[in-house]
Amino acid sequence: MNFDRILLSHGSGGLLTNNLIKDVILKYFNNKWLNELNDSALIETNSNKICFTTDSYVINPIFFPGGDIGSLSIHGTVNDLAVSGAKPLYISVSFIIEEGLLFEEFERILSSIKKAAEEANVKIVTGDTKVVHKGTCDKIFINTAGIGIYNYKGNIGADKIMKGDAIIVNGNIAEHGAAILCKREELNVDSDINSDSAPLNNLIERLKNISNNIHCMRDATRGGIGVVLLELAKISGKDFIINERDIPIRANVKAVCEILGLDPLYIANEGKFLLFCDKCDADKILNEMKKDKYGKNAAIIGFVEKEGKGEVNLRTELGSIRIVDMPAGELVPRIC
Amino acid sequence: MNFDRILLSHGSGGLLTNNLIKDVILKYFNNKWLNELNDSALIETNSNKICFTTDSYVINPIFFPGGDIGSLSIHGTVNDLAVSGAKPLYISVSFIIEEGLLFEEFERILSSIKKAAEEANVKIVTGDTKVVHKGTCDKIFINTAGIGIYNYKGNIGADKIMKGDAIIVNGNIAEHGAAILCKREELNVDSDINSDSAPLNNLIERLKNISNNIHCMRDATRGGIGVVLLELAKISGKDFIINERDIPIRANVKAVCEILGLDPLYIANEGKFLLFCDKCDADKILNEMKKDKYGKNAAIIGFVEKEGKGEVNLRTELGSIRIVDMPAGELVPRIC
Repeated sequence: MNFDRILLSHGSGGLLTNNLIKDVILKYFNNKWLNELNDSALIETNSNKICFTTDSYVINPIFFPGGDIGSLSIHGTVNDLAVSGAKPLYISVSFIIEEGLLFEEFERILSSIKKAAEEANVKIVTGDTKVVHKGTCDKIFINTAGIGIYNYKGNIGADKIMKGDAIIVNGNIAEHGAAILCKREELNVDSDINSDSAPLNNLIERLKNISNNIHCMRDATRGGIGVVLLELAKISGKDFIINERDIPIRANVKAVCEILGLDPLYIANEGKFLLFCDKCDADKILNEMKKDKYGKNAAIIGFVEKEGKGEVNLRTELGSIRIVDMPAGELVPRIC
Repeated sequence: MNFDRILLSHGSGGLLTNNLIKDVILKYFNNKWLNELNDSALIETNSNKICFTTDSYVINPIFFPGGDIGSLSIHGTVNDLAVSGAKPLYISVSFIIEEGLLFEEFERILSSIKKAAEEANVKIVTGDTKVVHKGTCDKIFINTAGIGIYNYKGNIGADKIMKGDAIIVNGNIAEHGAAILCKREELNVDSDINSDSAPLNNLIERLKNISNNIHCMRDATRGGIGVVLLELAKISGKDFIINERDIPIRANVKAVCEILGLDPLYIANEGKFLLFCDKCDADKILNEMKKDKYGKNAAIIGFVEKEGKGEVNLRTELGSIRIVDMPAGELVPRIC
């Protein structure tokens, strides 16, 4: 399908986002770093391997159960570095502020950034502030970029995924997206669902220390674990099998998704990642995850089945197999 | 003055921007990198000195005589690294797009980014794309972050400015701001003024190669050379004397500023920087600048007069001395 203008769906993490990046953006910036479409770029300087990443945060509402745009902007960038195998070190923070934002709100956000950076043990070393007219931005947008040092003994990447690998998630899925949806003005569902927004770097350091057999990690943000699994299956050229009943999810999150007609597989997380490792280390990694506060509900949700066409097969709770598809069109906009 | 909400002027590069950064933002992020308020942060890894910077671009209009938001977003970040003494290497690009932006416009911007990155010899290695509802962003905002390697033999910084230093600008001032103002819908003045938006890293590499006596460089963007001089005078604790008649400016730019009642000292540049160096190297540096296409109209505009209170004194064309003040309130919003 051809479009003459950019739609909301081009930013929602599904098929159109994929097309926009691959067919339009990469046409202009065709280089080895960007082409890999990883969460961060691996740059080699003299004696260091440096990871570099960026994300802009446009979430609505800016304050939500379990976090706000400030903490999210730190967690998101820290996690992109961490799942790339790097120890996150330095962060830049850039604000685009709508004229009229209350100082009280801005300071709440700054305070939240400070707290999140302290927990993740990263330094905010540079920044920028712009203010635009009322009505030309929605309260505040934040961009963070991050630098980390790659310090894993093994090699990590979608192309390192191997047949037989276990697929692990570090806890309950779909909580960030569900919390935001419930909070949105147009819905205003009363729930006790909190966003799972959290820094994963300390947990991931623990895992890197106990296993040299981690093959790939990816945080399951926009598009949820469904889209991440599909992207990794495609890049690795392997088929995955996922057991629906092994996917950890809270009952109230599942219920909200059912009411809204949304598949939790595609709902955003901000503190969950998928880890692919050699089966021999799966239990060890799972147990180590469970010791961390951000991994208590970790579970092995599936396996890399075979060389294939890059398909993700879901064994449903009823025992049937369904093929997981890339969601077309509108997912949930402004979720991060 | 106390405010309960953020005003446009908090983002325009003048006094209120200064207050916002120093009184509010630094209250939360008090560390040695940010406190320096340099154009980029100097980070030391094992064997490298790395400079790291970021800027968000919200310019209106997005296409203007002499450039567009795409080229500007590369030039601005490249220049922040270059004036810090670094060789810019890697850039991240993050888009926030308003639903409805024409693909044709987006591709013009991408093409312009590509061209600017090629001229500056930097690689775009990572990025992000968000799309927001119509009316919650103005066409497109771009954030770039950049990494460079510090490769200057000397030390550069506002605190390295010394009594007797020559102050050099690499060409005609106020062209970016004047071009944008003429192009704005509400003005629509017909002029042949182009933005001076340009990458300065190649020029600055030439200068670093011929002199070990460069003490400080700063690009004169938001707030123009006036605000940059004031900031540097304050940090260095020196008084500067600037000769108005030596400041290079095109007659039509001067005329537009007069018509609009604006002081060109405070009008933004995007391809101009101030350089402070030992007087003994001033002519050598000036001549080297003039060999470069972005330094043809370079001039020595003043000197560091004495230890002092951080004042900037302007000797006017009539011979009188006036003290340059920090402009209060509204400068020109959304100029970069």
